[in-house]
Amino acid sequence: MFLRNYWYVAAWGSEVGRDFLARTFLNEPVLLYRTESGKAVALEDRCCHRNLPLSMGRLEGEAVRCGYHGLKFDAQGRCIEVPGQANIPPNAKVKTYPLVEKWELVWIWMGDAEPDESLLPQWQWMEQPGWAVARGNDSKPLHMKCNWQLNNDNLLDLTHVRYVHAKTLGGSNLDRFPVKTERRPHSIYMKRWIPDVAPIPLWAKYLDFKGNVDRWQVCEIELPSHSVADVGFAPLGTLQPDGNLDSGIALKALVTATPETENTSFMFYAQVRNFGVDDADMTRHFVEDGRAIFLEDIAVMEAQQRVRLARPGAPTIDIHGDAPHLAMRRLVERTMMEEQTEKVPS
Amino acid sequence: MFLRNYWYVAAWGSEVGRDFLARTFLNEPVLLYRTESGKAVALEDRCCHRNLPLSMGRLEGEAVRCGYHGLKFDAQGRCIEVPGQANIPPNAKVKTYPLVEKWELVWIWMGDAEPDESLLPQWQWMEQPGWAVARGNDSKPLHMKCNWQLNNDNLLDLTHVRYVHAKTLGGSNLDRFPVKTERRPHSIYMKRWIPDVAPIPLWAKYLDFKGNVDRWQVCEIELPSHSVADVGFAPLGTLQPDGNLDSGIALKALVTATPETENTSFMFYAQVRNFGVDDADMTRHFVEDGRAIFLEDIAVMEAQQRVRLARPGAPTIDIHGDAPHLAMRRLVERTMMEEQTEKVPS
Amino acid sequence: MFLRNYWYVAAWGSEVGRDFLARTFLNEPVLLYRTESGKAVALEDRCCHRNLPLSMGRLEGEAVRCGYHGLKFDAQGRCIEVPGQANIPPNAKVKTYPLVEKWELVWIWMGDAEPDESLLPQWQWMEQPGWAVARGNDSKPLHMKCNWQLNNDNLLDLTHVRYVHAKTLGGSNLDRFPVKTERRPHSIYMKRWIPDVAPIPLWAKYLDFKGNVDRWQVCEIELPSHSVADVGFAPLGTLQPDGNLDSGIALKALVTATPETENTSFMFYAQVRNFGVDDADMTRHFVEDGRAIFLEDIAVMEAQQRVRLARPGAPTIDIHGDAPHLAMRRLVERTMMEEQTEKVPS
Repeated sequence: MFLRNYWYVAAWGSEVGRDFLARTFLNEPVLLYRTESGKAVALEDRCCHRNLPLSMGRLEGEAVRCGYHGLKFDAQGRCIEVPGQANIPPNAKVKTYPLVEKWELVWIWMGDAEPDESLLPQWQWMEQPGWAVARGNDSKPLHMKCNWQLNNDNLLDLTHVRYVHAKTLGGSNLDRFPVKTERRPHSIYMKRWIPDVAPIPLWAKYLDFKGNVDRWQVCEIELPSHSVADVGFAPLGTLQPDGNLDSGIALKALVTATPETENTSFMFYAQVRNFGVDDADMTRHFVEDGRAIFLEDIAVMEAQQRVRLARPGAPTIDIHGDAPHLAMRRLVERTMMEEQTEKVPS
Repeated sequence: MFLRNYWYVAAWGSEVGRDFLARTFLNEPVLLYRTESGKAVALEDRCCHRNLPLSMGRLEGEAVRCGYHGLKFDAQGRCIEVPGQANIPPNAKVKTYPLVEKWELVWIWMGDAEPDESLLPQWQWMEQPGWAVARGNDSKPLHMKCNWQLNNDNLLDLTHVRYVHAKTLGGSNLDRFPVKTERRPHSIYMKRWIPDVAPIPLWAKYLDFKGNVDRWQVCEIELPSHSVADVGFAPLGTLQPDGNLDSGIALKALVTATPETENTSFMFYAQVRNFGVDDADMTRHFVEDGRAIFLEDIAVMEAQQRVRLARPGAPTIDIHGDAPHLAMRRLVERTMMEEQTEKVPS
Repeated sequence: MFLRNYWYVAAWGSEVGRDFLARTFLNEPVLLYRTESGKAVALEDRCCHRNLPLSMGRLEGEAVRCGYHGLKFDAQGRCIEVPGQANIPPNAKVKTYPLVEKWELVWIWMGDAEPDESLLPQWQWMEQPGWAVARGNDSKPLHMKCNWQLNNDNLLDLTHVRYVHAKTLGGSNLDRFPVKTERRPHSIYMKRWIPDVAPIPLWAKYLDFKGNVDRWQVCEIELPSHSVADVGFAPLGTLQPDGNLDSGIALKALVTATPETENTSFMFYAQVRNFGVDDADMTRHFVEDGRAIFLEDIAVMEAQQRVRLARPGAPTIDIHGDAPHLAMRRLVERTMMEEQTEKVPS
């Protein structure tokens, strides 16, 4: 089950060029490339004639020539040449997918409704002065053998940090600080304010920092799977919980999962920060540390998926900390039902 | 879906000997070997007692001894010994399959009707003086992860040569020369006459040839999958389109696909020619070039198969050049229906 | 189809310790470990909260901490801590499985009925003075890609020795010596007395033995799959067929198959003997020879399984030598029906 009338990250912009990139999204094979003018294009990666993936063909200017019988498709998916005949059959076309390039990423619209750019997340830190970007996995997705919603569950959960990331982020017990959950029309927002504690050692090591701080853990996931997880801190007493957190020492993970199939997904992510902005070494360390952390999450999610497939009806319980991700699952479910009854969300 | 009351190539004759050869055809496991007198035998490769493949047993003279409990079967599939008991249970037998050895190949009859040798294709060039044979893949089949009919489609298509074989056969545009298709009772025949063009570079390099020629592309596929593809040429004006093409510089590919399962097949093929007949080096080059060409086809067919399995109901269109293979598919389909209504073709 | 209210071997005792051992039995994932006091524990290897295998967590004293959200389960499977909340949800528990340690092995009870230790096989040779134990595969199971009942079939069959083990045990024809089968309430017992023949070369080589002996082949399999196969011998005329066989030169294989899934199993086995008891070199040779012999059986059983899956409805015949294993299959089938109608065998 997928949400269709939403944007998904298809690729980092730097992955798409004049060589074909073939990827499957929501069970549909997609071919990505750029026109000579640099515009990114997404076509169904299946020739409408005899099913050969168009990615086995070649680019001719803006158009794609199938590698089997040479049918040629323009960047709008229209067949513009059939070798051996003058006319073009009326149904000779392949599906195209609307794309938007924003925040260094190529976003794809998999649904039938009119694409709506207001549904893109606001990841302005990707290109804002005063912020450094550590591009996830060196601007490639991480492949996950699990359903995309497990990633939402994981991101909207704070308890797991102590257990899953004990070796990386470290595991002090923050359970005594309450978590506030907000159900918003297209997102779930959660926030924990953590006054007067030590900063996260992994990040603090990059700063010349002594003593306690005020920390926060804030995460918002917008439909379908676009999250901003903010784990910054500020010198003790210098920032109020409802203040502008970006004025502190800010570190955010921008993460999204794009479904490949029901049981596999791509994770795209970046870490943005407002300190050591020109320090390329620090950025390199963030890339490496970030990959280690997300691979810890993926190991857990893939194990969950294996058990779910092996023991399909096995009962489970919920705990208090599940409130944010249960709210997100309900939001996804309700939106899926709306899509299926053709009441596309406005 | 398979045609059963037809001959399929099971093996090159040289593959079958006193060591067991185990292969699956039409989903049935088959054991091939030769008797001491050299006669090829095909038995069901499954002991009727406890299911062990007989190919895990051993030959004893003309008979096969199962490797589990020692039941012994003669070359007619009859159990002739059960260790530990004097009598033989009445149903103790394994299926045998009629075989014919012809054109250096072992042909197997998988159906229940009486085997009919008139249904064998006439591949007389395999043993005719004046012709050299380049045995495909050094007298072994190529394994294809695709349905057998995709190979018929491919062979009855001329357009693909320019795209699939651009690097090997080369890709001059012959679309302006019309293709004639004939629907025959047990075969589809197609022919393109191409006057006054350069010969195919790959073949011409073996001959001391200057200037243009008259070329032809002729292919006939007999049920179920036995094709002769003739791509010869003649000095300009020396041969008429309806003349005896074998009097030109003739090069034919004899190709057949034997279904292993619904989604996998074996390709057996040879290339025969009437020039450089005693030139063993040339034959070696033909073996190598031929393998490269057929592997190009197989890469395409296997990709088609993957897409068909991943996107089962996806719509397709037809183009003019599909006429020959669409005719072949209709012939196969009609013949399958006849088999299933027990009106076996006479 | 499995028998549930019986004991299965889960592991060698030496495999279970303070590190987690994760194994699947009867399709259920199980986590095995020892408490600090050394008691073996078996828990469902699936957290009841979000499905993570508990084997990805860690031991804390006697309890298991889940590696995702830190739920903690005691050795009785009760959740005793949920990070972030004071109360424990009422259904927060994982299944536990009764274990018994006996004969160096850890036996698990997979059923819902009260565990019944009287159903354990009597493998007293494992710890009896005067007997040496060659632990199968160095105290690890062999994994078999086949249904567990094929192993019962194989053990209750004597004919196969000549064919499957021709290279190891050797293959003299013993068919002239009759096999007696006894149907017992919870087991099948078979016996062949073989007077005045050469001893099995593989074993005789360890003894300074000349001339013929009286041999026997005795096998009893208790439900579900616990067998003692006795292949000893005695100096000519020194032992009567109904005498105490353990007073001869005794060699027994203790073998059991534990179902992992319908189509995969674990084989646990040991060889016990009453000669060369202190000879560690001889024990080492038995370990190596035994592994070679059982791998011959497994190769056959895995091939049978592949054919059964590929040709599900294919007909088979029975022979005289099948009587013991057919009796065992009927016993298993009858007991399965009793379990399913909730008439658990007393």
